Amino acid sequence: MGNPHDFRMPLEEAMDTQRAIRRLKPDPVDDDLVRRLIELALKAPTGSNAQNWEFIVVRDPAVKARLAARNRRAFSIYGPIGRRTSRNDPKMQRVLDAVQWQADHFEEIPVIVVACLKGMRPVFPSILVSSFYGSIYPSVQNLLLAARSAGLGAALITLPLWSSFAARRILGCPWNVTPCAVIPLGWPQGRYGPTSRRPVEEVTSLDRYGNRWSPGDR
Amino acid sequence: MGNPHDFRMPLEEAMDTQRAIRRLKPDPVDDDLVRRLIELALKAPTGSNAQNWEFIVVRDPAVKARLAARNRRAFSIYGPIGRRTSRNDPKMQRVLDAVQWQADHFEEIPVIVVACLKGMRPVFPSILVSSFYGSIYPSVQNLLLAARSAGLGAALITLPLWSSFAARRILGCPWNVTPCAVIPLGWPQGRYGPTSRRPVEEVTSLDRYGNRWSPGDR
Repeated sequence: MGNPHDFRMPLEEAMDTQRAIRRLKPDPVDDDLVRRLIELALKAPTGSNAQNWEFIVVRDPAVKARLAARNRRAFSIYGPIGRRTSRNDPKMQRVLDAVQWQADHFEEIPVIVVACLKGMRPVFPSILVSSFYGSIYPSVQNLLLAARSAGLGAALITLPLWSSFAARRILGCPWNVTPCAVIPLGWPQGRYGPTSRRPVEEVTSLDRYGNRWSPGDR
Repeated sequence: MGNPHDFRMPLEEAMDTQRAIRRLKPDPVDDDLVRRLIELALKAPTGSNAQNWEFIVVRDPAVKARLAARNRRAFSIYGPIGRRTSRNDPKMQRVLDAVQWQADHFEEIPVIVVACLKGMRPVFPSILVSSFYGSIYPSVQNLLLAARSAGLGAALITLPLWSSFAARRILGCPWNVTPCAVIPLGWPQGRYGPTSRRPVEEVTSLDRYGNRWSPGDR
Protein backbone atom coordinates (compact mmCIF):
# COMPACT_ATOMS: atom_id res chain seq x y z
CA MET A 1 0.00 0.00 0.00
CA GLY A 2 2.98 2.38 -0.38
CA ASN A 3 5.45 3.58 2.21
CA PRO A 4 4.68 5.85 5.15
CA HIS A 5 5.94 9.41 4.69
CA ASP A 6 6.72 8.75 1.06
CA PHE A 7 4.97 10.86 -1.56
CA ARG A 8 7.13 9.84 -4.48
CA MET A 9 4.71 7.35 -6.01
CA PRO A 10 4.42 7.94 -9.79
CA LEU A 11 1.44 10.25 -10.38
CA GLU A 12 -0.49 7.87 -12.60
CA GLU A 13 -0.02 4.99 -10.16
CA ALA A 14 -1.42 7.12 -7.33
CA MET A 15 -4.40 8.10 -9.48
CA ASP A 16 -4.97 4.61 -10.89
CA THR A 17 -4.99 3.00 -7.44
CA GLN A 18 -6.76 5.72 -5.44
CA ARG A 19 -9.98 4.56 -3.83
CA ALA A 20 -12.15 5.22 -0.79
CA ILE A 21 -10.78 3.16 2.12
CA ARG A 22 -13.27 3.17 4.97
CA ARG A 23 -12.24 0.22 7.16
CA LEU A 24 -9.36 1.68 9.16
CA LYS A 25 -7.22 0.40 12.03
CA PRO A 26 -7.26 2.40 15.28
CA ASP A 27 -3.42 2.55 15.17
CA PRO A 28 -1.98 6.05 15.54
CA VAL A 29 -1.10 8.30 12.59
CA ASP A 30 1.85 10.65 13.12
CA ASP A 31 1.29 14.39 13.30
CA ASP A 32 4.22 14.87 10.91
CA LEU A 33 2.50 12.73 8.30
CA VAL A 34 -0.81 14.61 8.66
CA ARG A 35 1.07 17.90 8.49
CA ARG A 36 2.75 16.91 5.22
CA LEU A 37 -0.60 15.79 3.75
CA ILE A 38 -2.02 19.24 4.49
CA GLU A 39 1.11 20.93 3.14
CA LEU A 40 0.63 19.10 -0.17
CA ALA A 41 -3.10 19.92 -0.10
CA LEU A 42 -2.21 23.62 0.07
CA LYS A 43 -0.34 23.36 -3.26
CA ALA A 44 -3.65 23.10 -5.11
CA PRO A 45 -5.14 26.17 -6.78
CA THR A 46 -7.75 28.45 -5.18
CA GLY A 47 -10.06 30.93 -6.92
CA SER A 48 -8.32 34.30 -7.42
CA ASN A 49 -5.43 32.71 -5.46
CA ALA A 50 -7.29 33.58 -2.25
CA GLN A 51 -5.71 30.63 -0.36
CA ASN A 52 -8.76 30.69 1.89
CA TRP A 53 -8.69 27.07 3.01
CA GLU A 54 -8.98 26.15 6.68
CA PHE A 55 -8.21 22.62 7.87
CA ILE A 56 -9.33 21.22 11.21
CA VAL A 57 -7.43 18.14 12.43
CA VAL A 58 -9.74 16.32 14.84
CA ARG A 59 -8.09 14.00 17.40
CA ASP A 60 -10.10 14.87 20.55
CA PRO A 61 -12.39 11.89 21.34
CA ALA A 62 -15.18 14.26 22.47
CA VAL A 63 -15.23 16.14 19.14
CA LYS A 64 -14.96 12.84 17.23
CA ALA A 65 -17.91 11.42 19.18
CA ARG A 66 -20.10 14.40 18.27
CA LEU A 67 -19.17 14.13 14.58
CA ALA A 68 -19.78 10.36 14.81
CA ALA A 69 -23.28 10.98 16.17
CA ARG A 70 -24.09 13.40 13.32
CA ASN A 71 -22.70 10.92 10.80
CA ARG A 72 -24.78 8.03 12.20
CA ARG A 73 -27.90 10.14 12.26
CA ALA A 74 -27.45 11.19 8.61
CA PHE A 75 -26.66 7.62 7.55
CA SER A 76 -29.73 6.27 9.38
CA ILE A 77 -31.77 8.26 6.83
CA TYR A 78 -29.52 7.99 3.77
CA GLY A 79 -28.49 4.35 4.28
CA PRO A 80 -31.92 2.69 3.91
CA ILE A 81 -32.68 4.85 0.86
CA GLY A 82 -29.36 3.79 -0.68
CA ARG A 83 -30.05 0.12 0.16
CA ARG A 84 -33.43 0.27 -1.54
CA THR A 85 -32.40 2.16 -4.70
CA SER A 86 -29.35 -0.09 -5.24
CA ARG A 87 -30.91 -3.41 -4.22
CA ASN A 88 -29.93 -4.98 -7.57
CA ASP A 89 -26.40 -3.55 -7.51
CA PRO A 90 -24.11 -5.81 -5.40
CA LYS A 91 -21.18 -3.40 -5.81
CA MET A 92 -23.15 -0.50 -4.32
CA GLN A 93 -24.37 -2.78 -1.52
CA ARG A 94 -20.72 -3.47 -0.63
CA VAL A 95 -20.01 0.29 -0.63
CA LEU A 96 -22.94 0.75 1.76
CA ASP A 97 -21.55 -2.05 3.99
CA ALA A 98 -18.28 -0.09 4.19
CA VAL A 99 -20.09 3.18 4.92
CA GLN A 100 -22.02 1.37 7.67
CA TRP A 101 -18.75 0.01 9.09
CA GLN A 102 -17.31 3.54 9.09
CA ALA A 103 -20.41 4.88 10.86
CA ASP A 104 -20.18 2.11 13.50
CA HIS A 105 -16.44 2.69 14.14
CA PHE A 106 -16.20 6.45 13.62
CA GLU A 107 -14.86 7.16 17.13
CA GLU A 108 -11.95 4.72 16.60
CA ILE A 109 -10.66 6.46 13.47
CA PRO A 110 -7.32 8.01 14.50
CA VAL A 111 -7.60 11.32 12.62
CA ILE A 112 -10.53 13.17 11.06
CA VAL A 113 -9.59 16.09 8.81
CA VAL A 114 -12.32 18.64 8.07
CA ALA A 115 -11.67 20.83 5.04
CA CYS A 116 -13.29 24.26 5.32
CA LEU A 117 -13.39 27.50 3.38
CA LYS A 118 -13.16 30.97 4.83
CA GLY A 119 -15.26 33.76 3.36
CA MET A 120 -18.86 34.33 2.39
CA ARG A 121 -20.43 31.22 0.86
CA PRO A 122 -22.28 32.43 -2.26
CA VAL A 123 -25.68 31.01 -3.22
CA PHE A 124 -25.95 32.75 -6.60
CA PRO A 125 -24.92 32.94 -9.47
CA SER A 126 -24.06 29.28 -10.00
CA ILE A 127 -20.58 30.03 -11.29
CA LEU A 128 -19.61 31.80 -8.03
CA VAL A 129 -20.83 28.74 -6.13
CA SER A 130 -18.72 26.54 -8.43
CA SER A 131 -15.65 28.76 -7.90
CA PHE A 132 -16.17 28.63 -4.13
CA TYR A 133 -16.09 24.83 -3.94
CA GLY A 134 -13.44 24.83 -6.69
CA SER A 135 -11.17 26.41 -4.05
CA ILE A 136 -11.35 23.46 -1.65
CA TYR A 137 -11.87 20.21 -3.58
CA PRO A 138 -8.62 20.40 -5.59
CA SER A 139 -6.80 20.56 -2.25
CA VAL A 140 -8.93 17.70 -0.86
CA GLN A 141 -7.95 15.62 -3.89
CA ASN A 142 -4.26 16.42 -3.29
CA LEU A 143 -4.70 15.23 0.30
CA LEU A 144 -6.38 12.00 -0.84
CA LEU A 145 -3.68 11.27 -3.44
CA ALA A 146 -0.92 12.02 -0.94
CA ALA A 147 -2.58 9.67 1.59
CA ARG A 148 -2.65 7.00 -1.11
CA SER A 149 1.06 7.49 -1.82
CA ALA A 150 1.85 7.10 1.91
CA GLY A 151 -0.27 3.94 2.15
CA LEU A 152 -2.78 5.68 4.40
CA GLY A 153 -6.50 4.89 4.02
CA ALA A 154 -8.79 7.84 3.33
CA ALA A 155 -12.19 8.68 1.95
CA LEU A 156 -14.05 11.83 0.98
CA ILE A 157 -17.31 12.09 2.91
CA THR A 158 -19.85 14.78 3.74
CA LEU A 159 -22.48 12.98 5.85
CA PRO A 160 -21.12 14.27 9.22
CA LEU A 161 -21.74 17.82 7.93
CA TRP A 162 -25.35 17.19 6.96
CA SER A 163 -26.53 19.87 9.38
CA SER A 164 -24.19 22.79 8.75
CA PHE A 165 -25.54 24.40 11.92
CA ALA A 166 -24.55 21.38 14.05
CA ALA A 167 -21.20 20.99 12.25
CA ARG A 168 -20.30 24.64 12.90
CA ARG A 169 -21.22 24.31 16.56
CA ILE A 170 -19.21 21.08 17.04
CA LEU A 171 -16.15 22.49 15.26
CA GLY A 172 -16.42 26.02 16.64
CA CYS A 173 -16.62 27.57 13.18
CA PRO A 174 -17.85 31.16 12.94
CA TRP A 175 -20.46 32.10 10.29
CA ASN A 176 -17.76 32.92 7.72
CA VAL A 177 -16.00 29.53 7.90
CA THR A 178 -17.83 26.78 6.01
CA PRO A 179 -17.03 23.10 6.70
CA CYS A 180 -17.10 21.50 3.20
CA ALA A 181 -15.79 17.95 3.42
CA VAL A 182 -14.53 15.35 5.89
CA ILE A 183 -11.58 13.01 5.36
CA PRO A 184 -11.21 10.19 7.93
CA LEU A 185 -7.59 8.96 7.92
CA GLY A 186 -5.99 5.78 9.21
CA TRP A 187 -4.04 2.68 8.25
CA PRO A 188 -6.18 0.36 6.10
CA GLN A 189 -7.67 -2.90 7.31
CA GLY A 190 -7.43 -5.64 4.69
CA ARG A 191 -6.67 -5.35 1.02
CA TYR A 192 -8.29 -3.11 -1.55
CA GLY A 193 -8.58 -3.84 -5.26
CA PRO A 194 -8.84 -1.45 -8.20
CA THR A 195 -11.85 0.75 -8.94
CA SER A 196 -13.92 0.52 -12.11
CA ARG A 197 -14.82 3.56 -14.15
CA ARG A 198 -17.00 4.41 -17.12
CA PRO A 199 -14.92 4.67 -20.34
CA VAL A 200 -13.74 8.10 -21.55
CA GLU A 201 -15.79 7.80 -24.74
CA GLU A 202 -19.03 7.48 -22.76
CA VAL A 203 -18.58 10.74 -20.85
CA THR A 204 -16.71 12.95 -23.34
CA SER A 205 -18.11 15.13 -26.12
CA LEU A 206 -16.33 17.01 -28.90
CA ASP A 207 -17.17 20.72 -29.21
CA ARG A 208 -20.81 20.34 -28.20
CA TYR A 209 -22.49 18.20 -25.57
CA GLY A 210 -23.69 14.86 -26.93
CA ASN A 211 -21.33 14.79 -29.92
CA ARG A 212 -19.46 11.78 -28.50
CA TRP A 213 -15.68 11.92 -28.89
CA SER A 214 -13.79 8.86 -30.06
CA PRO A 215 -10.19 9.94 -30.56
CA GLY A 216 -9.18 6.39 -31.50
CA ASP A 217 -11.52 6.45 -34.52
CA ARG A 218 -9.57 8.85 -36.69
CA MET B 1 8.59 20.92 -17.80
CA GLY B 2 8.19 17.11 -17.94
CA ASN B 3 7.80 14.78 -20.86
CA PRO B 4 4.82 14.58 -23.20
CA HIS B 5 2.62 11.55 -22.59
CA ASP B 6 4.46 10.77 -19.38
CA PHE B 7 2.48 10.68 -16.16
CA ARG B 8 5.13 9.04 -14.02
CA MET B 9 6.34 12.20 -12.29
CA PRO B 10 6.64 11.61 -8.51
CA LEU B 11 3.39 12.74 -6.90
CA GLU B 12 4.93 15.32 -4.60
CA GLU B 13 6.96 16.84 -7.46
CA ALA B 14 3.78 17.23 -9.54
CA MET B 15 1.98 18.88 -6.61
CA ASP B 16 4.94 21.06 -5.59
CA THR B 17 5.40 22.41 -9.12
CA GLN B 18 1.78 22.67 -10.23
CA ARG B 19 0.71 26.17 -11.13
CA ALA B 20 -1.67 28.04 -13.42
CA ILE B 21 0.01 28.41 -16.83
CA ARG B 22 -1.97 30.85 -18.96
CA ARG B 23 0.44 31.90 -21.70
CA LEU B 24 0.20 29.00 -24.14
CA LYS B 25 1.62 28.31 -27.59
CA PRO B 26 -0.86 27.70 -30.42
CA ASP B 27 0.98 24.42 -31.25
CA PRO B 28 -1.29 21.38 -31.49
CA VAL B 29 -1.96 19.04 -28.57
CA ASP B 30 -2.57 15.38 -29.49
CA ASP B 31 -5.98 13.82 -29.02
CA ASP B 32 -4.31 10.82 -27.39
CA LEU B 33 -2.76 13.05 -24.75
CA VAL B 34 -6.07 14.81 -24.02
CA ARG B 35 -7.81 11.45 -23.87
CA ARG B 36 -5.33 10.15 -21.28
CA LEU B 37 -5.73 13.33 -19.19
CA ILE B 38 -9.48 12.72 -19.08
CA GLU B 39 -8.96 9.02 -18.33
CA LEU B 40 -6.88 9.97 -15.28
CA ALA B 41 -9.45 12.62 -14.32
CA LEU B 42 -12.11 9.88 -14.19
CA LYS B 43 -10.14 8.03 -11.50
CA ALA B 44 -11.13 10.68 -8.95
CA PRO B 45 -14.00 10.00 -6.55
CA THR B 46 -17.60 11.16 -7.12
CA GLY B 47 -20.38 11.49 -4.55
CA SER B 48 -22.17 8.12 -4.04
CA ASN B 49 -19.89 6.86 -6.84
CA ALA B 50 -22.34 8.37 -9.35
CA GLN B 51 -19.56 8.91 -11.97
CA ASN B 52 -21.72 11.71 -13.35
CA TRP B 53 -18.96 13.79 -14.93
CA GLU B 54 -19.24 15.01 -18.51
CA PHE B 55 -16.24 16.46 -20.32
CA ILE B 56 -16.46 18.61 -23.45
CA VAL B 57 -13.26 18.90 -25.51
CA VAL B 58 -13.52 22.12 -27.50
CA ARG B 59 -11.41 22.37 -30.67
CA ASP B 60 -13.92 23.98 -33.08
CA PRO B 61 -12.80 27.62 -33.68
CA ALA B 62 -16.44 28.78 -33.76
CA VAL B 63 -17.20 27.34 -30.29
CA LYS B 64 -13.87 28.66 -28.97
CA ALA B 65 -14.66 32.14 -30.31
CA ARG B 66 -18.00 32.20 -28.50
CA LEU B 67 -16.40 31.08 -25.22
CA ALA B 68 -13.65 33.67 -25.79
CA ALA B 69 -16.26 36.40 -26.16
CA ARG B 70 -17.97 35.37 -22.89
CA ASN B 71 -14.59 35.22 -21.15
CA ARG B 72 -13.59 38.71 -22.39
CA ARG B 73 -16.94 40.15 -21.37
CA ALA B 74 -16.66 38.72 -17.84
CA PHE B 75 -13.03 39.88 -17.53
CA SER B 76 -13.94 43.39 -18.71
CA ILE B 77 -15.97 43.66 -15.47
CA TYR B 78 -13.85 41.53 -13.12
CA GLY B 79 -10.44 42.74 -14.37
CA PRO B 80 -10.72 46.44 -13.43
CA ILE B 81 -12.14 45.48 -10.00
CA GLY B 82 -9.19 43.11 -9.49
CA ARG B 83 -6.71 45.78 -10.63
CA ARG B 84 -8.12 48.27 -8.15
CA THR B 85 -8.37 45.98 -5.11
CA SER B 86 -4.84 44.61 -5.66
CA ARG B 87 -3.12 47.83 -6.72
CA ASN B 88 -0.48 47.46 -3.97
CA ASP B 89 0.09 43.74 -4.70
CA PRO B 90 2.59 43.35 -7.59
CA LYS B 91 2.18 39.55 -7.60
CA MET B 92 -1.60 39.81 -8.12
CA GLN B 93 -1.02 42.43 -10.83
CA ARG B 94 1.17 39.90 -12.68
CA VAL B 95 -1.58 37.27 -12.32
CA LEU B 96 -4.05 39.76 -13.84
CA ASP B 97 -1.58 40.43 -16.70
CA ALA B 98 -1.60 36.68 -17.43
CA VAL B 99 -5.40 36.49 -17.23
CA GLN B 100 -5.56 39.46 -19.64
CA TRP B 101 -3.14 37.68 -22.00
CA GLN B 102 -5.32 34.58 -21.87
CA ALA B 103 -8.44 36.64 -22.62
CA ASP B 104 -6.69 38.30 -25.58
CA HIS B 105 -5.45 34.99 -27.04
CA PHE B 106 -8.30 32.67 -26.08
CA GLU B 107 -9.07 31.65 -29.69
CA GLU B 108 -5.46 30.50 -30.22
CA ILE B 109 -5.47 28.05 -27.30
CA PRO B 110 -5.34 24.59 -28.90
CA VAL B 111 -7.76 22.76 -26.57
CA ILE B 112 -10.37 23.96 -24.10
CA VAL B 113 -11.76 21.29 -21.76
CA VAL B 114 -15.07 22.06 -20.05
CA ALA B 115 -15.81 19.92 -16.99
CA CYS B 116 -19.54 19.42 -16.42
CA LEU B 117 -21.79 17.47 -14.08
CA LYS B 118 -24.91 15.60 -15.06
CA GLY B 119 -27.89 15.62 -12.74
CA MET B 120 -29.94 18.17 -10.85
CA ARG B 121 -27.78 20.94 -9.41
CA PRO B 122 -28.93 21.39 -5.80
CA VAL B 123 -29.24 24.84 -4.23
CA PHE B 124 -30.00 23.65 -0.68
CA PRO B 125 -28.91 22.31 1.82
CA SER B 126 -25.33 23.52 1.62
CA ILE B 127 -23.87 20.04 2.11
CA LEU B 128 -25.65 18.73 -1.00
CA VAL B 129 -24.20 21.66 -2.95
CA SER B 130 -20.75 20.81 -1.58
CA SER B 131 -21.17 17.13 -2.52
CA PHE B 132 -22.25 18.13 -6.03
CA TYR B 133 -19.12 20.17 -6.76
CA GLY B 134 -17.10 17.61 -4.77
CA SER B 135 -17.92 15.23 -7.63
CA ILE B 136 -16.16 17.31 -10.30
CA TYR B 137 -13.26 19.25 -8.75
CA PRO B 138 -11.29 16.19 -7.61
CA SER B 139 -11.31 15.05 -11.25
CA VAL B 140 -10.37 18.55 -12.45
CA GLN B 141 -7.41 18.46 -10.05
CA ASN B 142 -6.35 15.06 -11.44
CA LEU B 143 -6.49 16.56 -14.92
CA LEU B 144 -4.37 19.55 -13.87
CA LEU B 145 -1.76 17.36 -12.14
CA ALA B 146 -1.61 15.01 -15.12
CA ALA B 147 -1.13 18.00 -17.45
CA ARG B 148 1.72 19.16 -15.21
CA SER B 149 3.36 15.73 -15.40
CA ALA B 150 3.15 15.79 -19.20
CA GLY B 151 4.63 19.30 -19.37
CA LEU B 152 1.36 20.74 -20.64
CA GLY B 153 0.25 24.18 -19.49
CA ALA B 154 -3.16 24.38 -17.86
CA ALA B 155 -5.24 26.56 -15.57
CA LEU B 156 -8.54 26.25 -13.75
CA ILE B 157 -10.89 29.07 -14.75
CA THR B 158 -14.60 29.81 -14.54
CA LEU B 159 -14.96 33.26 -16.19
CA PRO B 160 -16.18 31.88 -19.58
CA LEU B 161 -19.11 30.28 -17.70
CA TRP B 162 -20.16 33.48 -15.96
CA SER B 163 -23.56 33.32 -17.64
CA SER B 164 -24.66 29.71 -17.21
CA PHE B 165 -27.46 30.39 -19.70
CA ALA B 166 -24.98 31.50 -22.40
CA ALA B 167 -22.53 28.70 -21.54
CA ARG B 168 -25.24 26.04 -21.88
CA ARG B 169 -26.35 27.49 -25.22
CA ILE B 170 -22.79 27.65 -26.63
CA LEU B 171 -21.97 24.10 -25.47
CA GLY B 172 -25.37 22.58 -26.25
CA CYS B 173 -25.89 21.44 -22.67
CA PRO B 174 -29.42 20.48 -21.65
CA TRP B 175 -30.85 21.77 -18.35
CA ASN B 176 -29.56 18.74 -16.43
CA VAL B 177 -25.90 19.16 -17.51
CA THR B 178 -24.07 21.91 -15.60
CA PRO B 179 -20.80 23.33 -16.96
CA CYS B 180 -18.66 23.80 -13.81
CA ALA B 181 -15.11 24.68 -14.83
CA VAL B 182 -12.92 25.40 -17.86
CA ILE B 183 -9.36 24.15 -18.39
CA PRO B 184 -7.48 25.73 -21.34
CA LEU B 185 -4.63 23.40 -22.39
CA GLY B 186 -1.51 24.00 -24.47
CA TRP B 187 2.27 23.93 -24.45
CA PRO B 188 3.66 26.67 -22.17
CA GLN B 189 5.30 29.84 -23.41
CA GLY B 190 8.32 30.79 -21.34
CA ARG B 191 9.39 29.52 -17.95
CA TYR B 192 7.36 29.29 -14.78
CA GLY B 193 8.74 29.42 -11.25
CA PRO B 194 7.33 27.94 -8.04
CA THR B 195 4.19 29.13 -6.27
CA SER B 196 4.12 30.53 -2.76
CA ARG B 197 1.66 29.30 -0.17
CA ARG B 198 0.60 30.23 3.33
CA PRO B 199 2.22 27.97 5.97
CA VAL B 200 0.28 24.94 7.28
CA GLU B 201 0.27 26.38 10.82
CA GLU B 202 -1.59 29.49 9.67
CA VAL B 203 -4.53 27.60 8.17
CA THR B 204 -4.80 24.51 10.39
CA SER B 205 -6.61 24.11 13.70
CA LEU B 206 -6.58 21.22 16.19
CA ASP B 207 -10.00 19.86 17.22
CA ARG B 208 -11.77 23.22 17.08
CA TYR B 209 -11.50 26.13 14.68
CA GLY B 210 -9.01 28.75 15.82
CA ASN B 211 -7.01 26.42 18.11
CA ARG B 212 -3.95 26.69 15.87
CA TRP B 213 -2.04 23.48 15.31
CA SER B 214 1.75 23.41 15.54
CA PRO B 215 2.78 19.76 15.29
CA GLY B 216 6.46 20.76 15.40
CA ASP B 217 6.04 22.28 18.90
CA ARG B 218 5.58 19.09 20.85
